[in-house]
Amino acid sequence: MPYRSSEKTRKKKDAKRTAMMQAAVGVFAEKGYHAATVRDIVSAADVAVGTFYFYFPDKETLFVHLYEETADFLLQAIDQAVRRQTTLPEQVQNGIQAYVNIALYEPAVIHLLLVGGVGAVPSLTSRQKEFRERLVAIWLRPLETAVTQKTIPPQNCRRAAEAIAGAHDEVILNLLSHADPDSEAENVIEELTLFTLRAVAYKGG
Amino acid sequence: MPYRSSEKTRKKKDAKRTAMMQAAVGVFAEKGYHAATVRDIVSAADVAVGTFYFYFPDKETLFVHLYEETADFLLQAIDQAVRRQTTLPEQVQNGIQAYVNIALYEPAVIHLLLVGGVGAVPSLTSRQKEFRERLVAIWLRPLETAVTQKTIPPQNCRRAAEAIAGAHDEVILNLLSHADPDSEAENVIEELTLFTLRAVAYKGG
Repeated sequence: MPYRSSEKTRKKKDAKRTAMMQAAVGVFAEKGYHAATVRDIVSAADVAVGTFYFYFPDKETLFVHLYEETADFLLQAIDQAVRRQTTLPEQVQNGIQAYVNIALYEPAVIHLLLVGGVGAVPSLTSRQKEFRERLVAIWLRPLETAVTQKTIPPQNCRRAAEAIAGAHDEVILNLLSHADPDSEAENVIEELTLFTLRAVAYKGG
Repeated sequence: MPYRSSEKTRKKKDAKRTAMMQAAVGVFAEKGYHAATVRDIVSAADVAVGTFYFYFPDKETLFVHLYEETADFLLQAIDQAVRRQTTLPEQVQNGIQAYVNIALYEPAVIHLLLVGGVGAVPSLTSRQKEFRERLVAIWLRPLETAVTQKTIPPQNCRRAAEAIAGAHDEVILNLLSHADPDSEAENVIEELTLFTLRAVAYKGG
């Protein structure tokens, strides 16, 4: 059964790729992009150096893939959380909750997207811009719907979405610097939801 | 007159240092930190290579100084704009106006502080954190005063200041990507001021 065999091989390869990607997140977060070496990554992933070069020509390529896949992961989580709800307060709260959850369980992911790496890898600048643009788009849709439904007054929704995206990033980055992020998470979600709804003049349900 | 003579020498030296710093902002913004060379910087500043090494041991040191001085420049401008006013709406509007003005006239400065370089230079991570912390502190003071004066309700002012700082950064970064930033600036100031005052539930004067 050649299909199953090749499928099995593919899965095995994917597992190695995933292991290297996961290891790289930790290595970059710990050592920084420049100090981190391919050797550090393969060592943390427990794979051979040759395996690395089977998948990636160099450290930079892995880093760009890592950034893109990490951005997709976070954006999809927030987007799905928002889309699961119908009213603006629920959408805002759920979106923030999803963001906070990922920040708590995968702080290195947030560090990678918001702080580390950009500047280190010139080709990442356009990816970062795209990541920010997609984050703004996630908030734009519910705001425009809310204007249509008259639960918020007419306003420049695009600008408000930018401000919301920036506000959330900064608060969540600060949460990760908190002495006990887990115990603070509930407060962050509650306060940031209120901040966001007030900012767009939500009139209440 | 040895004093005047040495003073004159010092000023001449400072002028060269300033010329290199100003040139470096443009060079880094255009080429990115890694592609930029000491040769590019001295060429743009019209000084000899030896002059560079009289002031800085290497490109990274210049970059760290540049980041710190640029951060000081922006933070002082915003802080002074806020302190010149007494009511929260004036403080918010004036602070945003100062930020927008610098962004319009020195976009490379904003790029340097918010996007470029961090990650490229590991020693910059702590400076970036300090910059963000000082920006939050600028907004914290007027919010606490407003709570005391009961023009905004009791709230977690620290968290609100973080959200405000993040919101402003993101909107101003987007302004710089706008096709005609100058014509859009007034709208940004007006809308972002309103967003900020609503977010903290300002009750009006």
